[in-house]
Amino acid sequence: MPALFTLLDLAGVFAFAVSGAVAARNRGLDGFGIAALAFTVACGGGVMRDLCIGAVPPVGLSDWRYLAVSMVATLIVVGAHSLVERMAQPVLLFDSIGLGLFAVAGAQKALAFGHNAEVAVLVGTLTGVGGGVLRDVLLNRVPVILRREIYASAALLAAGIEVLGEWLQWGDGWRSWGAVLACFALRHLSLRYHWHLPRFDRRAGVGGDRGSD
Amino acid sequence: MPALFTLLDLAGVFAFAVSGAVAARNRGLDGFGIAALAFTVACGGGVMRDLCIGAVPPVGLSDWRYLAVSMVATLIVVGAHSLVERMAQPVLLFDSIGLGLFAVAGAQKALAFGHNAEVAVLVGTLTGVGGGVLRDVLLNRVPVILRREIYASAALLAAGIEVLGEWLQWGDGWRSWGAVLACFALRHLSLRYHWHLPRFDRRAGVGGDRGSD
Amino acid sequence: MPALFTLLDLAGVFAFAVSGAVAARNRGLDGFGIAALAFTVACGGGVMRDLCIGAVPPVGLSDWRYLAVSMVATLIVVGAHSLVERMAQPVLLFDSIGLGLFAVAGAQKALAFGHNAEVAVLVGTLTGVGGGVLRDVLLNRVPVILRREIYASAALLAAGIEVLGEWLQWGDGWRSWGAVLACFALRHLSLRYHWHLPRFDRRAGVGGDRGSD
Repeated sequence: MPALFTLLDLAGVFAFAVSGAVAARNRGLDGFGIAALAFTVACGGGVMRDLCIGAVPPVGLSDWRYLAVSMVATLIVVGAHSLVERMAQPVLLFDSIGLGLFAVAGAQKALAFGHNAEVAVLVGTLTGVGGGVLRDVLLNRVPVILRREIYASAALLAAGIEVLGEWLQWGDGWRSWGAVLACFALRHLSLRYHWHLPRFDRRAGVGGDRGSD
Repeated sequence: MPALFTLLDLAGVFAFAVSGAVAARNRGLDGFGIAALAFTVACGGGVMRDLCIGAVPPVGLSDWRYLAVSMVATLIVVGAHSLVERMAQPVLLFDSIGLGLFAVAGAQKALAFGHNAEVAVLVGTLTGVGGGVLRDVLLNRVPVILRREIYASAALLAAGIEVLGEWLQWGDGWRSWGAVLACFALRHLSLRYHWHLPRFDRRAGVGGDRGSD
Repeated sequence: MPALFTLLDLAGVFAFAVSGAVAARNRGLDGFGIAALAFTVACGGGVMRDLCIGAVPPVGLSDWRYLAVSMVATLIVVGAHSLVERMAQPVLLFDSIGLGLFAVAGAQKALAFGHNAEVAVLVGTLTGVGGGVLRDVLLNRVPVILRREIYASAALLAAGIEVLGEWLQWGDGWRSWGAVLACFALRHLSLRYHWHLPRFDRRAGVGGDRGSD
């Protein structure tokens, strides 16, 4: 399914690039920094995936469409400032869409390269969350996916459904879109109803971060 | 020596996973974050090693035992909270064991892949300290191994002894366990007697970190 | 041009190692930390480049000259403290030289490995800025290249000139040194005349960093 694969990938690139550009702009980075962060977040998970599965050079670096889509996303974020501003929590929305799309595409590619189910699930999850982790590391904060709400779990769910569906030979469309929707639904239900995974710290909340090392 | 190799590797995985899970829990991360950090710390150094020596996919992602051991370590840290709490400085202890184990296993694997002695020593050290560096970067602090006591130097010592021993054709058991013990001894002597490497900063201590860039 | 290539690469290694060592020393890291950061900054961009273009093991790990040059740079920074102190903004100067050298050498190597122009430009830029980004991530601050002045843009310019020149079959010397000089000139003109790329944040300056996530 090369068409579906490419579509999934490019839609995810756009969504993540917007998320990266918005975060970079809100942190006061300059124009190049915004573009660089947009591209890094958009392609970071995919580059890690490609390095891990031996797909060199990473397609995020060799296919001009990824760079072009990231630059379009950057221009929209920089140029249509008031539009983005008015959208409620745009980062969150785009992030959730990209998350499922990347996890599914990542798991698909790992399987296509002949790796086993565990590699596919882990690499799929990494594809989904890798860009966001890089974004937060570069912006010097503890990755939000490790602290709050159900996020990486949703990527894991999408990658898991994709790999399970491939194993059970479900139809491609149902499997992949079902996985993306399940991820999106889990993510947004967790946001709406404030679901979160349990924490086990007896000492201090996140606010005590700085002093606790 | 595949049995020794596997044993070294899995024992190191467990030790590092505990170290990652404890640090994540103390920082207030949620259940997934704790498991993710445990797995990242456990396998991070090995994944970097495998990428550098061309062992794709990294064994940390393709061998289910690494994931399973990390999850067991996570459950122990999360479930047996009071037990871990009572152990004096558990992070430190497990960290020191894993450090030597990983450095030796990493150097061995690099040599097994036909790379030269320098690659083996550097990659062995990286295998030992890589997970801890990732842990600290993800938890948003300057890696402790770059600031305090004799830590990475101990990993370097272990990797160096292993490579030297292989070159001098010492027996496998003596060489590898000797290297691990030397690393552990150096690390714990440095902790007990407050040995540390000299620093050269004339301006401010670590406490002045934030303001100095 | 193996001689030019090697010369470019080693000169860049020295320049970046000094930059890493100075930053590490100013942050209060110990002797090993200073050496480790010097080596990481010196080779980090090159290692990322080699992983992305499939050159395993990365030359930064396998060629003893990189390590040796990094250690020499470390000794100079640690031993000749007052000398380095007296030089006005030594970090900045060495950084600018290394930036262009690395970008050109990185783009050259990507082309030599048969990758396309986009990969060469991106990987060249990554070679130039990768070490500095790692330095700032390890020292727990937002990478300076994403915030201030014209920096990564200068690396992009150098990589772009190199790739364009190769495509137009300009002479090797003119092309590469021209690219390095263009990068250096752009960087220093931007510092002298306070050129900077526009920022688009309507909320808070960099000073508001901490509270904005």
